[in-house]
Amino acid sequence: MKKIKYAMVGGGEGSFIGPIHRMAAKMDDSAELVAGAFSRDSRNNAATAAKLSLDPSRVYDDWRALIAAEKGRIDFLTVCTPNDSHYAIAKAALEAGMHVMCEKPLSLTVREAKTLRRIAERKSLLLAVPFTYTGNPMVKLARDLIAGGELGRVCKVHVEYMQGSFRKIDFRKPLDKRNRWKMDPKSSGPSCVVADIGVHGATLIEYMTGLEIEKVLADLSSFAPGNTLDDDASILIRLSGGAKAVMVTSKIASGEENGLRVRVYGEKASLFWDQENNNYLSVKYPGAPEKIYKRSAPYVRAESETAFMASRIPAGHHEGFIEAFANIYRGFAAAIAGEKGVDFPTAEEGVRTMRFVEAVLKSSAAGGRWTGL
Amino acid sequence: MKKIKYAMVGGGEGSFIGPIHRMAAKMDDSAELVAGAFSRDSRNNAATAAKLSLDPSRVYDDWRALIAAEKGRIDFLTVCTPNDSHYAIAKAALEAGMHVMCEKPLSLTVREAKTLRRIAERKSLLLAVPFTYTGNPMVKLARDLIAGGELGRVCKVHVEYMQGSFRKIDFRKPLDKRNRWKMDPKSSGPSCVVADIGVHGATLIEYMTGLEIEKVLADLSSFAPGNTLDDDASILIRLSGGAKAVMVTSKIASGEENGLRVRVYGEKASLFWDQENNNYLSVKYPGAPEKIYKRSAPYVRAESETAFMASRIPAGHHEGFIEAFANIYRGFAAAIAGEKGVDFPTAEEGVRTMRFVEAVLKSSAAGGRWTGL
Amino acid sequence: MKKIKYAMVGGGEGSFIGPIHRMAAKMDDSAELVAGAFSRDSRNNAATAAKLSLDPSRVYDDWRALIAAEKGRIDFLTVCTPNDSHYAIAKAALEAGMHVMCEKPLSLTVREAKTLRRIAERKSLLLAVPFTYTGNPMVKLARDLIAGGELGRVCKVHVEYMQGSFRKIDFRKPLDKRNRWKMDPKSSGPSCVVADIGVHGATLIEYMTGLEIEKVLADLSSFAPGNTLDDDASILIRLSGGAKAVMVTSKIASGEENGLRVRVYGEKASLFWDQENNNYLSVKYPGAPEKIYKRSAPYVRAESETAFMASRIPAGHHEGFIEAFANIYRGFAAAIAGEKGVDFPTAEEGVRTMRFVEAVLKSSAAGGRWTGL
Amino acid sequence: MKKIKYAMVGGGEGSFIGPIHRMAAKMDDSAELVAGAFSRDSRNNAATAAKLSLDPSRVYDDWRALIAAEKGRIDFLTVCTPNDSHYAIAKAALEAGMHVMCEKPLSLTVREAKTLRRIAERKSLLLAVPFTYTGNPMVKLARDLIAGGELGRVCKVHVEYMQGSFRKIDFRKPLDKRNRWKMDPKSSGPSCVVADIGVHGATLIEYMTGLEIEKVLADLSSFAPGNTLDDDASILIRLSGGAKAVMVTSKIASGEENGLRVRVYGEKASLFWDQENNNYLSVKYPGAPEKIYKRSAPYVRAESETAFMASRIPAGHHEGFIEAFANIYRGFAAAIAGEKGVDFPTAEEGVRTMRFVEAVLKSSAAGGRWTGL
Repeated sequence: MKKIKYAMVGGGEGSFIGPIHRMAAKMDDSAELVAGAFSRDSRNNAATAAKLSLDPSRVYDDWRALIAAEKGRIDFLTVCTPNDSHYAIAKAALEAGMHVMCEKPLSLTVREAKTLRRIAERKSLLLAVPFTYTGNPMVKLARDLIAGGELGRVCKVHVEYMQGSFRKIDFRKPLDKRNRWKMDPKSSGPSCVVADIGVHGATLIEYMTGLEIEKVLADLSSFAPGNTLDDDASILIRLSGGAKAVMVTSKIASGEENGLRVRVYGEKASLFWDQENNNYLSVKYPGAPEKIYKRSAPYVRAESETAFMASRIPAGHHEGFIEAFANIYRGFAAAIAGEKGVDFPTAEEGVRTMRFVEAVLKSSAAGGRWTGL
Repeated sequence: MKKIKYAMVGGGEGSFIGPIHRMAAKMDDSAELVAGAFSRDSRNNAATAAKLSLDPSRVYDDWRALIAAEKGRIDFLTVCTPNDSHYAIAKAALEAGMHVMCEKPLSLTVREAKTLRRIAERKSLLLAVPFTYTGNPMVKLARDLIAGGELGRVCKVHVEYMQGSFRKIDFRKPLDKRNRWKMDPKSSGPSCVVADIGVHGATLIEYMTGLEIEKVLADLSSFAPGNTLDDDASILIRLSGGAKAVMVTSKIASGEENGLRVRVYGEKASLFWDQENNNYLSVKYPGAPEKIYKRSAPYVRAESETAFMASRIPAGHHEGFIEAFANIYRGFAAAIAGEKGVDFPTAEEGVRTMRFVEAVLKSSAAGGRWTGL
Repeated sequence: MKKIKYAMVGGGEGSFIGPIHRMAAKMDDSAELVAGAFSRDSRNNAATAAKLSLDPSRVYDDWRALIAAEKGRIDFLTVCTPNDSHYAIAKAALEAGMHVMCEKPLSLTVREAKTLRRIAERKSLLLAVPFTYTGNPMVKLARDLIAGGELGRVCKVHVEYMQGSFRKIDFRKPLDKRNRWKMDPKSSGPSCVVADIGVHGATLIEYMTGLEIEKVLADLSSFAPGNTLDDDASILIRLSGGAKAVMVTSKIASGEENGLRVRVYGEKASLFWDQENNNYLSVKYPGAPEKIYKRSAPYVRAESETAFMASRIPAGHHEGFIEAFANIYRGFAAAIAGEKGVDFPTAEEGVRTMRFVEAVLKSSAAGGRWTGL
Repeated sequence: MKKIKYAMVGGGEGSFIGPIHRMAAKMDDSAELVAGAFSRDSRNNAATAAKLSLDPSRVYDDWRALIAAEKGRIDFLTVCTPNDSHYAIAKAALEAGMHVMCEKPLSLTVREAKTLRRIAERKSLLLAVPFTYTGNPMVKLARDLIAGGELGRVCKVHVEYMQGSFRKIDFRKPLDKRNRWKMDPKSSGPSCVVADIGVHGATLIEYMTGLEIEKVLADLSSFAPGNTLDDDASILIRLSGGAKAVMVTSKIASGEENGLRVRVYGEKASLFWDQENNNYLSVKYPGAPEKIYKRSAPYVRAESETAFMASRIPAGHHEGFIEAFANIYRGFAAAIAGEKGVDFPTAEEGVRTMRFVEAVLKSSAAGGRWTGL
């Protein structure tokens, strides 16, 4: 079996998501990291590379240099820099014939996201956007239960993604590097909470239900003192086929950690998934006891082969965030190796979430008006 | 100690809420039932009275007859008929000098609710509207923790009240008596889910936070086949002082039972109360472990004497819905007996919730527009 | 319907269990309190009676006087005095032809308990011992699911009853009246934690599974400084038919409130009931999702009519400890009124739990030896 | 940084634990797999090696060949074969100067375990036994909270490790290879459930509390039809310093997955950890609200630097079983690289758990007699 090789831009010391990508790629031997431009700070870059035992000749202080030198030598490039450089790097990598795994948001505008999608299509390259939670086995089970009719027609979806991280920061003082770029429209783009975590919620709605977000009505706020971008959002949503949804998402929800919770109410049953209790899926019925599905249990297989295969270890031995991420790498690598019908999030989700962000911003700016995607 | 005596209109066989009122009144010997007009169906009326060992001479087939005959003989009248008769009965009782415990909604219109409030004030009579959950000790604790500054300034409130009861009914067929009146605008008034359970959510927001609902933006639906009134609602809310809230409430949430859950996010902490786990209150902090308060535990007293005194039995021996209701009767009876500063919901909450319902209906009818209360 | 009338011995001011009995009797109008000897302290006695609006001529400073005077005027007598007087009072009441509701432990010795059982049988009187938790709807559901074969043959039972109450008391100082009698072998009998709460566990094992406790091997401790009776117990149990059980029970489990939790493992499934979350029952299967049954939900009825009828209000509106107790009063009153096959705990459970306590004490005293009941 | 290199014996296709070891070693780049003898079935061996992209010249059909050829070329050997070969392989590896990571049970007898420990000591080699759960951050936090006095003196410990795996197998039919060896005393040793999972419980008791297991009184059963070894155990335990413990562990607990739950009751507080909800730790107090600690939250650091550093990602983004295992590899590799005071389970735990198993078997065989370790 030929090993898939990749390089990484961003993800140097101090990065949260860079190490996640690397652990995810390694967990199932999905891909081997062979080159990198981890930081524009050359000391950080060198230190990161040394820790990873990388060949120093394949470590670059600049992503352009990396793409030029690694063209033809790697299968894909992982982009985990601040938001404002995603587009340029992903574009250059695609044009150099590399598959790309690009952190969300895929770009700062819908237009850019569409451009990337078009280039990837034209060049028959894969462009993945790691919406982590679609890699979770119980999310896959939820999707397949709904697709199989367990809930009947979906009427209402409720998604919340509540974090309290901004309650640990004083935005009126100089921020450390890890947080600074998120608060500055230049590097983060025009949205903070919606673009950073709301997009996960939007993707999950569509992924789980198979319905499309058609219109939004949003009420954004900036509650954290000193913060200028949105840090709290309440969004009414209309889905294709007449269903409705509500999303609440926040960075100022004191005491919340990573409170992503999804409920889907159908005519016959409802289901509930809580990311902080991610190995379980609850299904409730009007006329029967609630059912609790457990990740990797044998009966999961009967409902969803995909969900069952997205686990490594038996029920009761839990998997977490890194494992969900590893599932995306596993799928992406399998697709690069030629497998068809693999389930991982792509430029499609990248574009749709950018459209979601833009519509939300526009609706809120208009004082709360229904706005189409 | 003089015993408080009361009569009841409505609450005959088949009624859900009638027996709750009676159990609540008895639990702490708050009041003694001495007369009733339980049903317009005289067989039901007589059967109910017999079960209650009432003196047959004080059982009436008509509420007007009851008020005429019992004037001066009872301390208060409990009204638990279908919504459309609340106003007339409560009004007549007040005018006859009786205190009144009237089920919500207090009336079908804001105007009627205000009239009742005015009469009660003018005649110095007590008019209680039993918003049950304000009687829960942990709700009282939440209120006092917030008032005491434990959360800092409140920024965001999230309330959900999800029921699946309409998934057990086929509205295209003739309904049984217990459900029929709720679906008919004539007897239930112009709103179903908002007036029936959304009002509990609205009251809890104001009761817990001490803030006022100022504006709403609502999206109502009728999902249950054959139903014409609202059975699902998503509501954005602006509170006094710049805080925001979201309410979702539904009768079509398949598999939900009585899913009333409130979260309040403040600058320093957040709290969470779940009616279906009603003996607990969770408080989360950005920089400290989550705390779980338990009903009736000794440390509750330090935070809220009211919450502590609203319990009968030690922590770990749980109390439920009837006990919360009994707290309202206990408070109401104490107030009738002359105690000052007793905590129970009154015409004020009755009027405010009617204003909430009307604003919600108006906002939704306008396609989702911010509407003041 | 003729009203059942009762008197109470014990349960004066400061009593925990007395008010519970009274609330339980009233909740469903099961029985009317008409007389009492609430305390040997005549001021307490009078004050209690006044609060209860009792006819002063039926309030007695001595239980013997009560029995003599109320003979033929009441249907039953409730005994909720300290343990050491249960036997004498219950015996006298039975001999006076009264049915008896006697708090556990029924007596201080097996021999006494058997005497009471014999007298009741001979005189065709009902002798109830309120093992509260058998009145819980979900415990009844558990029993009926097991009897119906849902679990297959039962192999292992695990019961814990953990309280931390002794961590709030300093036994080296003089105790207040409410706690003093429990720590003195003269008034409480030779066992503390086992006789006080372990017996609930023993009853639940037999009630739920239908199996009998045959042998025990016990390890008792006195951990609370200054305490001389058992305050912590670990007990291995052999059940009829080859099943086994383990019971742990404690008064020194810091931070526990009323942690009674029962698990039953059968060949085909297991079930779990937690008294502190008492409206739910979980059933787990090797090859299917866990099921969560909810009190009063319509599907409960299909499994257990008894469990369904033991509820007053719909699922999601919770009932608690008082309601479970009220179910015992309801059953007792129905049996007094002549109903057959009513489900409530009797002298049989009273005798069996005394045998359990004696065997446990004997086993532990022998250093941990298997001891038959 | 010099990379630690290792080889593996066992862990071929069909193995549960082999892949766990490999993922754990990779996750933090703790060690690189360079050689293996994965199966005595040479096709399985070759297939496993190919999947792992190993150099075929370093893949061996026999562990003796591996040790002979890899001597001096690897830093350590991981042993994950069936129980009966642990001793011989670990012994040979140590004698060849290799550090060893040996699956539990370390051997089939205490005597063998002591021999291994002695050899390792004499040769100054590291011998790790991966009791996975000691690698969990919240277990480390529990240990440090107890050591820091948060609970006061520990009085009672309750450990349960309930699995239902034997309910998915019919032991009266020929078993597949994955299960066969566990049921045969020749390959598994004289104990099944106690040696396989009870030892985790024993280790956790000692690891968390710092107390030693001194005596046991055990009641073993073989409930699964056709099974001859113990598949269910109830064990009373005496700890050093006067504390007591109870352990229940089972393979026939229908519907349980990996139900390892530990509670420690001290004079001042108690704590509770549930492996199936492994990112949380609950601490309960007699006079204060329950606290829920969350893995990786900033306040964890103040209580336990070790627990905090055993996490990779922020609170709310959960880690699971593989991550706990990876912590053991990380510690082991750090110790090999010369770091002092690293926290990972060693031959000491290997020996102590073997003594535990032998005492339990002896006690049960004697009909339930206190037996010293």
